[in-house]
Amino acid sequence: MAGSVRRRMGVEERREQLITVALELFAHRRPEDVSIDEIAERAGISRPLVYHYFPGKQSLYEAALRRAADELSDRFVEPPEGPLAERLLRVMGRFFDFVEDHGPGFSALMRGGPAAAVGTTGATGTDQGPAISNTRATIDDVRQAAYEQILTHLEVERPSERLSLVVRSWVSLAETTALLWLDGQAVPRTELEVQLVYDFAALAAVSAVHDAELAALVRRMLEQEPPDGHFADLVAHLITLIPPG
Amino acid sequence: MAGSVRRRMGVEERREQLITVALELFAHRRPEDVSIDEIAERAGISRPLVYHYFPGKQSLYEAALRRAADELSDRFVEPPEGPLAERLLRVMGRFFDFVEDHGPGFSALMRGGPAAAVGTTGATGTDQGPAISNTRATIDDVRQAAYEQILTHLEVERPSERLSLVVRSWVSLAETTALLWLDGQAVPRTELEVQLVYDFAALAAVSAVHDAELAALVRRMLEQEPPDGHFADLVAHLITLIPPG
Repeated sequence: MAGSVRRRMGVEERREQLITVALELFAHRRPEDVSIDEIAERAGISRPLVYHYFPGKQSLYEAALRRAADELSDRFVEPPEGPLAERLLRVMGRFFDFVEDHGPGFSALMRGGPAAAVGTTGATGTDQGPAISNTRATIDDVRQAAYEQILTHLEVERPSERLSLVVRSWVSLAETTALLWLDGQAVPRTELEVQLVYDFAALAAVSAVHDAELAALVRRMLEQEPPDGHFADLVAHLITLIPPG
Repeated sequence: MAGSVRRRMGVEERREQLITVALELFAHRRPEDVSIDEIAERAGISRPLVYHYFPGKQSLYEAALRRAADELSDRFVEPPEGPLAERLLRVMGRFFDFVEDHGPGFSALMRGGPAAAVGTTGATGTDQGPAISNTRATIDDVRQAAYEQILTHLEVERPSERLSLVVRSWVSLAETTALLWLDGQAVPRTELEVQLVYDFAALAAVSAVHDAELAALVRRMLEQEPPDGHFADLVAHLITLIPPG
């Protein structure tokens, strides 16, 4: 009995180790450029043994993605304390930490490129459809987690269609901005983190043109900010852009 | 000679016909749900004859995508006349026309889902990697065309990194907004077209916090707008959101 329990634990530990190794490799190179042989060598086991734990590269890749997705979703969780802009800024900081740590893996994945279907060498073989669907579903789960966290901070339980669209658009904007940052890193990430917080307020304010409920929410959001807070800075800056008269 | 020329024309015409049929079907159902048999039947030819013109569903799909991509890129072209907001709004109108016309095909494609790799039933067979790469490259060409058009309207030849990021982010935001609109169409598209024009100004203004060149560009953009134009409306609206004091 005890031996049987120990053996099952061992399998789980080995799987976790292989996932860790895969994520380390994906952080520096595109997943499609990392072979099972390399993962086996780095884990100190044989290639056939890797296939004992994962039926193919695609299933190892999906498990690695799920762990990365859970880790990223955890980073969105922020206590509902202090000014909203500060909270969003802390979340953006952790998001860019993640993006920086996972570099090429994040990039390949989010571009929906070959990383979404690396399994051609694996035992799962020729049908990529389900593999891509699984990958997309995992990414959509992360987007949904981000979306729900933002609504929690806005203290909105039943968002209007327009608020829903604003929040989802902003989540997508954060993804795109991070991808463009990875691709050259020409603009410092700390500036982009602040910019995305500003972008959130800007997109919400723009959408409020057509939506009284959203306008009330933006007013409340700005009123609750400290006079020296990020949103106040943004408003002061925007006013300088308006032509006189 | 004349016969030979005619035969070559015939091949091209048949290919164009098959592409047209495929795009019509993709406008109502996801590409992966459309079979070569259906395309053959609708074109009035046999299934083997379809494979004579296209080696597989993937190659027909890619050809259809390229035609749709060219058509969409053409819609971005707008004469450099009149207020910028009006020009952007006309482009957004044509963009949403395209999105509405191509519905599920656009959606499946841009989500990078199975539509990006429908070829499992085709003769090209098992290796999805290149197919996905081709698809992505075609989509990236459209994004690049949109990006270059915007820079032309801004009269900027060598954009700063931040301006480049703003324009590319906004192109991505337009994609996301269109996808979210397709997914339920809960917000009227005419409002979203205006909103995206506003979003462009808002994202540029926000980025200008860290960039004097961009600030000058935004000021110029606002100064050149008529007093009853869209950007003036936006500014007037945003001012109402600022808390008193």
